[in-house]
Amino acid sequence: MEFSSVDTMWVLIGAALVFFMQAGFAMVETGFTRAKNAGNIVMKNLMDFSIGTPTYWLVGFGIMFGTNNAINGLIGNFDFMVRGNYDDTFPTMALLIFQTVFCATAATIVSGAMAERTKFSAYCIYSFLISALVYPISGHWIWGGGWLGELGFHDFAGSTTVHMVGGVASLVGAAIVGPRIGKYSEKGESRAIPGHSLTLGALGVFILWFCWFGFNGASTVSMTGDNIVSASKIFVTTNLAAATAAVFTMFITWIRYKKPDVSMTLNGALAGLVAITAGCDAVSPFGAFIIGIVASFVIVFGIEFVDKVLKVDDPVGAIGVHGLAGAAGTILTGIFALPGSQEDPSLFGLAYGGGFKMVGIQALGVVAVAAWVAVTMGIVFTLIKKSKIGLRVAPAEEIAGMDITEHNIESSYADFMISTAVADSKFKDSEPVPSNVAIPVVNNSKPGAKMTKITIITNQNKLTRLHTALDSIGITGLTVTNVLGHGMQKGHTEYYRGTPVTIKLLPKVQIDIIVCKIPPQTVIDTIKKVLYTGNIGDGKIFVSDIENVVKVRTGEQGYDALQDNE
Amino acid sequence: MEFSSVDTMWVLIGAALVFFMQAGFAMVETGFTRAKNAGNIVMKNLMDFSIGTPTYWLVGFGIMFGTNNAINGLIGNFDFMVRGNYDDTFPTMALLIFQTVFCATAATIVSGAMAERTKFSAYCIYSFLISALVYPISGHWIWGGGWLGELGFHDFAGSTTVHMVGGVASLVGAAIVGPRIGKYSEKGESRAIPGHSLTLGALGVFILWFCWFGFNGASTVSMTGDNIVSASKIFVTTNLAAATAAVFTMFITWIRYKKPDVSMTLNGALAGLVAITAGCDAVSPFGAFIIGIVASFVIVFGIEFVDKVLKVDDPVGAIGVHGLAGAAGTILTGIFALPGSQEDPSLFGLAYGGGFKMVGIQALGVVAVAAWVAVTMGIVFTLIKKSKIGLRVAPAEEIAGMDITEHNIESSYADFMISTAVADSKFKDSEPVPSNVAIPVVNNSKPGAKMTKITIITNQNKLTRLHTALDSIGITGLTVTNVLGHGMQKGHTEYYRGTPVTIKLLPKVQIDIIVCKIPPQTVIDTIKKVLYTGNIGDGKIFVSDIENVVKVRTGEQGYDALQDNE
Amino acid sequence: MEFSSVDTMWVLIGAALVFFMQAGFAMVETGFTRAKNAGNIVMKNLMDFSIGTPTYWLVGFGIMFGTNNAINGLIGNFDFMVRGNYDDTFPTMALLIFQTVFCATAATIVSGAMAERTKFSAYCIYSFLISALVYPISGHWIWGGGWLGELGFHDFAGSTTVHMVGGVASLVGAAIVGPRIGKYSEKGESRAIPGHSLTLGALGVFILWFCWFGFNGASTVSMTGDNIVSASKIFVTTNLAAATAAVFTMFITWIRYKKPDVSMTLNGALAGLVAITAGCDAVSPFGAFIIGIVASFVIVFGIEFVDKVLKVDDPVGAIGVHGLAGAAGTILTGIFALPGSQEDPSLFGLAYGGGFKMVGIQALGVVAVAAWVAVTMGIVFTLIKKSKIGLRVAPAEEIAGMDITEHNIESSYADFMISTAVADSKFKDSEPVPSNVAIPVVNNSKPGAKMTKITIITNQNKLTRLHTALDSIGITGLTVTNVLGHGMQKGHTEYYRGTPVTIKLLPKVQIDIIVCKIPPQTVIDTIKKVLYTGNIGDGKIFVSDIENVVKVRTGEQGYDALQDNE
Repeated sequence: MEFSSVDTMWVLIGAALVFFMQAGFAMVETGFTRAKNAGNIVMKNLMDFSIGTPTYWLVGFGIMFGTNNAINGLIGNFDFMVRGNYDDTFPTMALLIFQTVFCATAATIVSGAMAERTKFSAYCIYSFLISALVYPISGHWIWGGGWLGELGFHDFAGSTTVHMVGGVASLVGAAIVGPRIGKYSEKGESRAIPGHSLTLGALGVFILWFCWFGFNGASTVSMTGDNIVSASKIFVTTNLAAATAAVFTMFITWIRYKKPDVSMTLNGALAGLVAITAGCDAVSPFGAFIIGIVASFVIVFGIEFVDKVLKVDDPVGAIGVHGLAGAAGTILTGIFALPGSQEDPSLFGLAYGGGFKMVGIQALGVVAVAAWVAVTMGIVFTLIKKSKIGLRVAPAEEIAGMDITEHNIESSYADFMISTAVADSKFKDSEPVPSNVAIPVVNNSKPGAKMTKITIITNQNKLTRLHTALDSIGITGLTVTNVLGHGMQKGHTEYYRGTPVTIKLLPKVQIDIIVCKIPPQTVIDTIKKVLYTGNIGDGKIFVSDIENVVKVRTGEQGYDALQDNE
Repeated sequence: MEFSSVDTMWVLIGAALVFFMQAGFAMVETGFTRAKNAGNIVMKNLMDFSIGTPTYWLVGFGIMFGTNNAINGLIGNFDFMVRGNYDDTFPTMALLIFQTVFCATAATIVSGAMAERTKFSAYCIYSFLISALVYPISGHWIWGGGWLGELGFHDFAGSTTVHMVGGVASLVGAAIVGPRIGKYSEKGESRAIPGHSLTLGALGVFILWFCWFGFNGASTVSMTGDNIVSASKIFVTTNLAAATAAVFTMFITWIRYKKPDVSMTLNGALAGLVAITAGCDAVSPFGAFIIGIVASFVIVFGIEFVDKVLKVDDPVGAIGVHGLAGAAGTILTGIFALPGSQEDPSLFGLAYGGGFKMVGIQALGVVAVAAWVAVTMGIVFTLIKKSKIGLRVAPAEEIAGMDITEHNIESSYADFMISTAVADSKFKDSEPVPSNVAIPVVNNSKPGAKMTKITIITNQNKLTRLHTALDSIGITGLTVTNVLGHGMQKGHTEYYRGTPVTIKLLPKVQIDIIVCKIPPQTVIDTIKKVLYTGNIGDGKIFVSDIENVVKVRTGEQGYDALQDNE
Repeated sequence: MEFSSVDTMWVLIGAALVFFMQAGFAMVETGFTRAKNAGNIVMKNLMDFSIGTPTYWLVGFGIMFGTNNAINGLIGNFDFMVRGNYDDTFPTMALLIFQTVFCATAATIVSGAMAERTKFSAYCIYSFLISALVYPISGHWIWGGGWLGELGFHDFAGSTTVHMVGGVASLVGAAIVGPRIGKYSEKGESRAIPGHSLTLGALGVFILWFCWFGFNGASTVSMTGDNIVSASKIFVTTNLAAATAAVFTMFITWIRYKKPDVSMTLNGALAGLVAITAGCDAVSPFGAFIIGIVASFVIVFGIEFVDKVLKVDDPVGAIGVHGLAGAAGTILTGIFALPGSQEDPSLFGLAYGGGFKMVGIQALGVVAVAAWVAVTMGIVFTLIKKSKIGLRVAPAEEIAGMDITEHNIESSYADFMISTAVADSKFKDSEPVPSNVAIPVVNNSKPGAKMTKITIITNQNKLTRLHTALDSIGITGLTVTNVLGHGMQKGHTEYYRGTPVTIKLLPKVQIDIIVCKIPPQTVIDTIKKVLYTGNIGDGKIFVSDIENVVKVRTGEQGYDALQDNE
């Protein structure tokens, strides 16, 4: 058999890039959720791929691409361990790896929507079922020679086949598992639950965008003949739709929420990518531009709809990005497909005078696949929920965080700040505990002098000015602690992804000073001068008594111990 | 038309890699700046690419590569939406995407140099103008058939065309926007402002280095004939210059600063990459080695020069890396270009006996492009600064951080440490807040009464319930601190990678309350009801005396200062 | 000379991917170690590649692939700066860059195993020696035409040549440098030292897996003829072994440790990748599946063996992942190699009836290479240890962290939480000043058993010793808070990128203790003994009164509530 070098290389490089999407999903999902679940979410991302790979090889691939059976239009022929041949221009193994990484993408989408409360064991089970059956069967309809593909349904790289399958499974799963504790108020108002690293979330989006060039571009599965032109155009349409969707999402959020929303704009870029995936080969760059614009509206209003109307809690926006933008992109392909872009010349976009034939087939495909996934995954999630395994962790586990309860990780960032917390009790070094060193002891020369502790709680941005002012009156010793707090100022309202956030506890700094020589009133007056604006949130000052102070280096106590500080 | 499979594939893979540089820039820029601006900087990185993509498609590409006009040497022909044909060996769409990602690289460089104080709206505007006009016009001179290219100016992959354009725009922009608050002392001494994640910064550098193989390697835009050899050599020269520059930067910093400086060495690697970009095809590996060494001196002394002599505040070193190393690399190409490496056989490096002809042309190109960018961007930045929009945020916004002021993000790491801060006030679980918490509140107080501080140390997952319960008895002011501690519960044993972990100090929260009107015993009873389970680890309550409290906003003291809290 | 476009492109893309492994290693190693060493570990990752690149070009490559000398089977011919020709289907420069990145992989493995206590200068020296001599010589035996390759030893992409070389060097190095302070108890029990970012560690694993498609796939160094099929199969076997190993590692840890262990499962995926590397071209997908299963057992029990039996401290599991799984994978190739997969038709796997010939050769190769590396690196590490340079930092430096002691980085996350710590002392605004109000003095006397709060503020690296000392006098309850502060020690000056940094507020810990039965003076004397060095920065002790303490679990108050604490 004579295979094509360039076609095979193109498919393999594409497979590597689509694999790397797992890293992108892992970063997006962990960045947009809370630190207490960080280890759990990366573990889920790792395991859906790791479980999906052997599953798809053993079972799924045959169901999707196997051809020799009676009900070929609905389900492929079982081909245990992929022993058949499926292509002439490149080896079957190249097709297998390429399709494996696509299958894993569908499975991994669900982990984000159901994050922070879904049991790990339940997750493993339904990931297995998506890879083994749900994805391969609807995949067979479209790409495996099944009835939808025969009808002329056009889903080039998988807006429906991959993304909407993941998105619909997300919707059903997130609805059945229920919202996270605290997501909706008693009145049913949605509350934002900010994630723990916007930077990792953004990194994930950049990784996904990068990999999408493989996802869409390599879906030509060829780099010869017309596919040279096709692949080049796909790179342009894919990139243009993503960029345009990001720009328009930014503007929409700027208008709706008064400020450009970072995380929604990141979702907007992904929505553009998902939406262009179905028709990236069939539309013009101008078509991609329009699809990008539509995707931006779909994502902003779609995420708000899911969150506020359906009241389905989707921590990362997966339902909007993959489900809604996937469906929209598939249908838009029926509107913007260029004449001559389809095998059947009667099929082309409504916008070019193609009438409702193609757009109808596209809509039919969307509905059929959505129904298939909703029903099957609805059954799967319900069965898991009712079984001994259960779909959701206990409330106390959810509050404590899934890292500790599901994986025995005290924290995914255990060492982050306190780097000596786990160290050696038998520690020996060149500075041993001085057992026989004479420590100078100086008696307090003014035993009657009262010492006072002054504690200030105020906003972080006042710290430097306060420090400088205290310095100017002779106080140079102080201790600063990051705290959360509020007094009168009971949180302020802001918008996060269109949802009002009431953060009851605000970040503050606590500054502790001990004074003796300098009169406390002088210190308090100075602090007040620096902090006063007349607005709520100026801060409070607490005064209390200190019995003694010891300076370790000199052994001085009381008044003397403080003389370098004030 | 018969295109080349391998040439097209090479260009497309290169385009994907150069796109991924955006992730590298985002990580470098956010890692080397402060946490309070993390969301803002990734948003800028996202938007320069997203704005640049449609802009370059609509306008910029035509200006850079369009050929049919009268002043062809200075500016290309406008080609709205890129409808012309520009190459014979691969589709125009492949050229478009490849050039789009190069254009975006030039634009994104500026965001780092002007980080932490430049308005987001201003950023969007000048990013648009760089992509639409500034970059395409000087790009036309060099790569689009313009006068510099005709002269024999050699800038293979863009040390000048891309990097120096970004670097000069950075210098002009950073100078006009002015240094960050606190960057220079009153005496004008430079102060370091460390970033918030050296690890993300390093990740960014590794990503950039990886992508540079696409940036330089795929700039052959061909993988046939002599370009096979050329591309292979480019991989070697690119890598060798980067590695050598990193090694020498390390040694220089080791000598100058006594210890090997990590962030400067990371910059050194990037400087080597920028410097080799102009001549990566024309010099030998040995030439690349020398260029890497020169780049290391340029970066260390260049960054110090910009920082201490010019007193231009460049948080990430972009002016040095892209501007100075870009200029140096372009000129060094005139010194180390091998005989026969240029179309015009009379052009080759000074070091090989080529005289000053080539190095003179290289220097001319550097000066011309630098002047073009300095003048046009100087005008752009000045106009924005004088307009209603403004170039810089207000001092108070800068100190508060641009995440909150520009994007309404409380923190890009909102959840990082205190994972229960935003949780449910209607929280229901198997341990509900005791409904019999209706403890009679007796006003034992009057102005001048005793004030008491109550400190609770307990598990983090009790925070929300405690907060709710305290609220219900009228206490709304409190301060929360993350602490490590243990009392009776001397750590518990868990397994980490099969090893028992004894964490002696467990994460806890400390809650401080000051009461006056409400009797301390009432508060203590309430706390006990909420925290009590009968298990070890329920927590402790500490009671101490407070002499006075001052509310800064109102000047109230003692009893009065606490009335909104209780 | 007529080179192949596709072969060259395949090799170059592979080289770029294998380069990117450096990012993966950097993230895995920094994520699995402590924050105080984060900058040091990424610097080591950067420098092993940066030192290795020119070294391999100048010396290593010739030793590995040079052919024209008398002892050709043992060592290649020196070829300074790689001037010879080494291949017919692609340029020598393509081979050079491909082999350079493989060499760097071997070197970088060691940094993880010896992390958190190895001197940076020592690291640079042995990295140089690995790249110059150790790796090239055993590499010559296998891939450079040497005696092992001649025997029929099959190590397709480097389970032994690359990974086991790194793994054995890790074992020898980690054993000679000794365990980190605190890793083993006095009784020799292993203790876990959790890292500072599981998410970055997971990102690193995803990056490595992605790059492994280049590592194994591009090791065909050809994409023509049979290699089209071979490369496609390699993608499948590589991916399948990794996924299977991850799944089985998860199950093994679930059974052994009761919960699925995230970091061990991440190591499991890497072990699968390392193990399949030797035979990825020679085994069937089913063979890869079995190799993945074996790798999962090797990694779990191997890491436990190294940790608990050998008592070698390997913070990231490099010895298990690269050493043990590398050896296992090489030998398993002798069991599962398909008939006809080797040049010599008599060589194929034991499982297919090939007898012990091939598996014997594989085992011989493993033993020979392991011995070579163990002896040479044993000498290298011992010489460095005995030299003036030294292999390990001082205990005090290790406890303080290598970022500050080796690189003058106060913290790699200096700005992370306290974003205003370095700001402007000359900041002026227009906020008005409030009027003064007299503060009433509140006197209060309290009855009952006296309880005293003792607050210590000192350096973080004193925490463990203080904790131990307080334990020894009966105080077991305490609370630790990370604070910023200074007294006499008003910041110290360090250099960051050539700029003096004056950090006025230094990271400190605050420790709070409440005592009742134990006399406060006893506690203070103990604290003074532990903290005293006579240098500025020893810390301060504050003593104040506590009115009451309540233990929630028992309801005890005052004296009684403290009895388990003191």
